[in-house]
Amino acid sequence: MVDKVIGIDIGGTNLRGALANKDGDILKRMKISSHADQGIEKLIDNLAGFIKDISEGENVRDIGLGIPGIIDSKNGIITQAPNILNVHDYPLRAALNKKLGSDIHLVIENDSNSAAVGEWWIGASKNVNSMIMITMGTGVGGGIVLDDKLWTGADGMAGEIGHMTIYPDGAKCNCGNYGCLESYASASAIRRMVREGLENKSLNTKLRESIRNAYLEDIPEIVMEAASEGDSFSLGIWQEVGKALGIAIASLVNLLNIEMVVIGGGVSNAWDLFIDATYEEAHRRAFRAPMKRAKIKKGLLGDDAGILGSAHLAFKSYSEKKS
Amino acid sequence: MVDKVIGIDIGGTNLRGALANKDGDILKRMKISSHADQGIEKLIDNLAGFIKDISEGENVRDIGLGIPGIIDSKNGIITQAPNILNVHDYPLRAALNKKLGSDIHLVIENDSNSAAVGEWWIGASKNVNSMIMITMGTGVGGGIVLDDKLWTGADGMAGEIGHMTIYPDGAKCNCGNYGCLESYASASAIRRMVREGLENKSLNTKLRESIRNAYLEDIPEIVMEAASEGDSFSLGIWQEVGKALGIAIASLVNLLNIEMVVIGGGVSNAWDLFIDATYEEAHRRAFRAPMKRAKIKKGLLGDDAGILGSAHLAFKSYSEKKS
Repeated sequence: MVDKVIGIDIGGTNLRGALANKDGDILKRMKISSHADQGIEKLIDNLAGFIKDISEGENVRDIGLGIPGIIDSKNGIITQAPNILNVHDYPLRAALNKKLGSDIHLVIENDSNSAAVGEWWIGASKNVNSMIMITMGTGVGGGIVLDDKLWTGADGMAGEIGHMTIYPDGAKCNCGNYGCLESYASASAIRRMVREGLENKSLNTKLRESIRNAYLEDIPEIVMEAASEGDSFSLGIWQEVGKALGIAIASLVNLLNIEMVVIGGGVSNAWDLFIDATYEEAHRRAFRAPMKRAKIKKGLLGDDAGILGSAHLAFKSYSEKKS
Repeated sequence: MVDKVIGIDIGGTNLRGALANKDGDILKRMKISSHADQGIEKLIDNLAGFIKDISEGENVRDIGLGIPGIIDSKNGIITQAPNILNVHDYPLRAALNKKLGSDIHLVIENDSNSAAVGEWWIGASKNVNSMIMITMGTGVGGGIVLDDKLWTGADGMAGEIGHMTIYPDGAKCNCGNYGCLESYASASAIRRMVREGLENKSLNTKLRESIRNAYLEDIPEIVMEAASEGDSFSLGIWQEVGKALGIAIASLVNLLNIEMVVIGGGVSNAWDLFIDATYEEAHRRAFRAPMKRAKIKKGLLGDDAGILGSAHLAFKSYSEKKS
């Protein structure tokens, strides 16, 4: 009987991981640089060392890993993970088993799927059978839990909520399509809107100066602060974000009649600035009854959603092995 | 062991039903007027008589019924069916059991969901584990089969593919929302486009005359014939239909990574006139890998999809009773 597992979130910058028990308590947590930019070999070395460090003094054999990318979960393969690595069809599970031993059991999943599982397991959607998680970060990720099971699709690629078309003739998305949710409700979407604002001079002097002196990654937070202080351009951006999210949620609710929509990720920290627009837009568009059913909630687990979701998948996979 | 069941499709105009075996062979089929416009009491009388007629000489106790509306399947209740009946929360199963006896086992489902089950069971999606059916009729209905099970949602309301928002500022839909798939890819959408064409005089004389002398319900077929003869206005309508469908399919594919999308319903008879636009739009927008996986196919069962799907649900429900 397994009583502890490790959940790991693999990011472009950091590896974050934790030792967790069956109740989802985090017994130990660690973080190191991933050095993913130095290539997959280096990342594997780091991961193997990281797993050894977390499991030190414990007898842990079940490990869940969340990665931003398209993952073939069944075979433990990274199909593609363009935001952190230049690999195609890389056999992550096999590579790690070679380093760690074949008795270590590894479950690999897309990081947004893991986050959905985390919030469903012990977060905002505890006691809910069907939910959708929307993760607003650099991009927009998603995960779908139906009938208490993660729906990953025919090839493990389901849940790309960020790439539902919201505005068919809208802004170009990183994926090549036009008007995806991601191109209106992510950190990179906010940066685009700010850039357009700079071009057509719709920013006031103060905001323009803050933006010009800022790192690219800090722009969403600057727009958040400016909006909180009443800056109308910034408030407009959050209206736009909220509206796009509401359009997507209305379609999801009509389509899947889920019990809950959970919104997480760094950009969701601006909750109070966009959620009214989201709520209004979603209720205006969706059927009354399923929309009434689908509570829209903020994620409860923050950055731990992915780690805990991966831990749960490791537990779950253990019980599947057994049977 | 049950070897025969009855599947029935309840429409505003007709009741259509069949006696079917476990292989989906139709052993007997019947059709009568539903007289739904004379109220629910009359419809129940007709249904009870219809069921007795089909089951004459057979020992059939398991019956599946498909109805256009929002159905609470678990409790056998018609939540709403505005297109055929003015009822709210009507206990259809209880009413029929009162007429037919409590030993008759009735399974009630939304008609588009039934059609999806039919195509998945023995139609275009035979041997496929996950599929979406889009039914293009007066409106646009849908059904979602995931992991070999109909996904009906928390309240049996899932699958409203026709009410995904495609163009947020688009044409007003019958549901009150703007720019739903239904307002671009249904018979009523085609009638709207023709009406707009008449208003801004973009129809040539021949087509205008045919339209003016036609019954409202025949308009989609007239536009189909005109397009087949090369009329540019009519071809444009089918382009519009195909494009809207392609946008919806791209979002569905990115979201659910299903193996197949099946398109049925009367309007889909114009297949050759819209499918290229659908295919092009869907492939342009969706991720390459899941789009490659998701075959887009025409329904194989035509009007029988719903009847056979209802029959399958009756068989399935029988085996659930047993266990």
